[in-house]
Amino acid sequence: MTSQAAPLTTGPVKVVGTGLLGTSIALGLSGLGVRVLLSDTSPSALALARDMGAGEPVAADSPEPALVVVATPPDIAGPVVVEELDRHPGAVVTDVASVKAVIAAEVAEGAEAAQRGRYVGSHPMAGRERSGPAAADADLFAGRPWVIATRDDADPAATAAVRGMALDLGALPVVLEPQEHDDAVAVVSHVPQLAASLVASRLVDAPEAALSLAGQGLRDVTRIAASDARLWSAILVGNAAPVAAELRELRADLDVLIDGLDRAAAQGPLAPGAVGALSQVIITGNTGVGRIPGKHGGAPRRYATVQVLVPDQPGELGRLFGEVGELGVNIEDLLIEHSAGAKAGIAHLQVVPAAAAALEEGLTNRGWRVVAE
Amino acid sequence: MTSQAAPLTTGPVKVVGTGLLGTSIALGLSGLGVRVLLSDTSPSALALARDMGAGEPVAADSPEPALVVVATPPDIAGPVVVEELDRHPGAVVTDVASVKAVIAAEVAEGAEAAQRGRYVGSHPMAGRERSGPAAADADLFAGRPWVIATRDDADPAATAAVRGMALDLGALPVVLEPQEHDDAVAVVSHVPQLAASLVASRLVDAPEAALSLAGQGLRDVTRIAASDARLWSAILVGNAAPVAAELRELRADLDVLIDGLDRAAAQGPLAPGAVGALSQVIITGNTGVGRIPGKHGGAPRRYATVQVLVPDQPGELGRLFGEVGELGVNIEDLLIEHSAGAKAGIAHLQVVPAAAAALEEGLTNRGWRVVAE
Repeated sequence: MTSQAAPLTTGPVKVVGTGLLGTSIALGLSGLGVRVLLSDTSPSALALARDMGAGEPVAADSPEPALVVVATPPDIAGPVVVEELDRHPGAVVTDVASVKAVIAAEVAEGAEAAQRGRYVGSHPMAGRERSGPAAADADLFAGRPWVIATRDDADPAATAAVRGMALDLGALPVVLEPQEHDDAVAVVSHVPQLAASLVASRLVDAPEAALSLAGQGLRDVTRIAASDARLWSAILVGNAAPVAAELRELRADLDVLIDGLDRAAAQGPLAPGAVGALSQVIITGNTGVGRIPGKHGGAPRRYATVQVLVPDQPGELGRLFGEVGELGVNIEDLLIEHSAGAKAGIAHLQVVPAAAAALEEGLTNRGWRVVAE
Repeated sequence: MTSQAAPLTTGPVKVVGTGLLGTSIALGLSGLGVRVLLSDTSPSALALARDMGAGEPVAADSPEPALVVVATPPDIAGPVVVEELDRHPGAVVTDVASVKAVIAAEVAEGAEAAQRGRYVGSHPMAGRERSGPAAADADLFAGRPWVIATRDDADPAATAAVRGMALDLGALPVVLEPQEHDDAVAVVSHVPQLAASLVASRLVDAPEAALSLAGQGLRDVTRIAASDARLWSAILVGNAAPVAAELRELRADLDVLIDGLDRAAAQGPLAPGAVGALSQVIITGNTGVGRIPGKHGGAPRRYATVQVLVPDQPGELGRLFGEVGELGVNIEDLLIEHSAGAKAGIAHLQVVPAAAAALEEGLTNRGWRVVAE
């Protein structure tokens, strides 16, 4: 996904903090021929990044950077940005922390008015299950959204420089104000993360037999509940007010559900208000999930699902996909469902509706067991 | 998955209600050579099931059934079971509704003590996004759990007969008492369903820009929020007390989160108790998600994930899987991640950890872009 044309970024670029994100950015830019200067408080992390080809350590005779990327831990990003604005009076400065308003406030407080315009924060939305320079990858950002947190008092050239770097690294820039960013990630990332943890917490005391009934729905809802508690706690306290506000709204809907269920428990399934309360929340959820953009950012689209039994043997999934390709059908999306105890999975192939019937027939003719939805 | 040996079920089997489930059961049993008698209040649904080869409509000269399967809508299943116990004094009677305690109570109340032992409820956990006999499929139950809701006062031969039918249809029988079943589905199915709706409801008023940041986590958590409100409301009011109890526990954890976030919002990220409250819920969630059985009902297992960029062109996914197969690696699980605006997806291939490094190298050598986790 990395651009093959000349990079938009003109160096030198100074990267402060050679962890996963900093080193990945440095690797990507170096690979494009941009000169990269590296800085880290840990000499060993710095040496590792250098040896990976990410760039050269900052030295007394290093040139002045045109762009500084602060990739330190988020709790010190604000002060480091202020420091770098001061140290490099000609440079654009950005950071890559996953909350933006609190850092913008720290910079507004710490930096002189004439300097602030050169700071534009950013947030590459790339996975971070591993950490440190050894896990770095020039392709970490390929195809991922990268928020450019611009402000009214930001220099447009600074916004453009940060956006150019994101494009150079193959990311998809999304320009938002800092508070817009924080409100957005509260609803699309932080609340789902906590909801997954809340549902998974219910499983701790459930009997084994109950868990044996677990299906794909439970697995999907709780997958991200396996995430790192230290990382997520730090992210969440940095975006506390927006997340708390969303969770209060969620709790109000939860109270509607509990009230409806209490009526049904007390007076039976036909209790006045019971079905209505439940339907209301489920229908609102239907509307909400329908707003998630489809593949390629287009409008949400309905695909038809063709379900196929796949024996659990090496190569069977490959054989299935090969034969789907031979039938001339493009798979738009898919998931694999497993049931406890089954020696086969069910592949849910999502295809354009017009292709579904022919695919079902073609696969059946080739001996695949197509199962009902 | 359907057994190739002689069926465990000896007919005739009478199926009352030829909707999706009833017709699917009838098709599966007929396909095994079991004689199936069909009954439905709708003459057209009955005729369609017959024409699909599901069996023969019940007639005045039909033989007595050995097994009766009540597959009516759940709100009338109890009275119909009582009726069938009375009508066929030699038959085992089961039903397939998705809640079990309420029906067992109705049968205990409606049927004479000497007759009750012949009733054993059941719950095939098969997907039901479409309905009616036209959507029926003999393979609907293949590889899916099928709860046999036995009781102390149930005739062991009746439990065995229902279990045998589930096995004949390729399902995985799980024997539970009715209340155990209802408590189990509350936690593994009904609460996740409602949590997905609650998170999806937060998206209704979110700005477009926020939705453009949606990643795989949000998509996973909210996928089942697209489910049918009428069906789910009816299921939930039939299991109201257990679901309400679980949701109260969830609300208590939610209050812990909101309290921690409020502290951080008021006093900053390092506020006493803030990080601790958030960590506690996330760590409990880690434990809970770790209890979900892995593939084939074995212990949960850690797979390594290899992420590969897949261009959005027909056959690319097939080519990838074909080449993974050529490298001799079995894909244990996978998902496809899309970012808004990207002309490529990221396939997350889950493989046994020992195979990951060789797979990464092999795919890279073949020209695939392997991206960092």
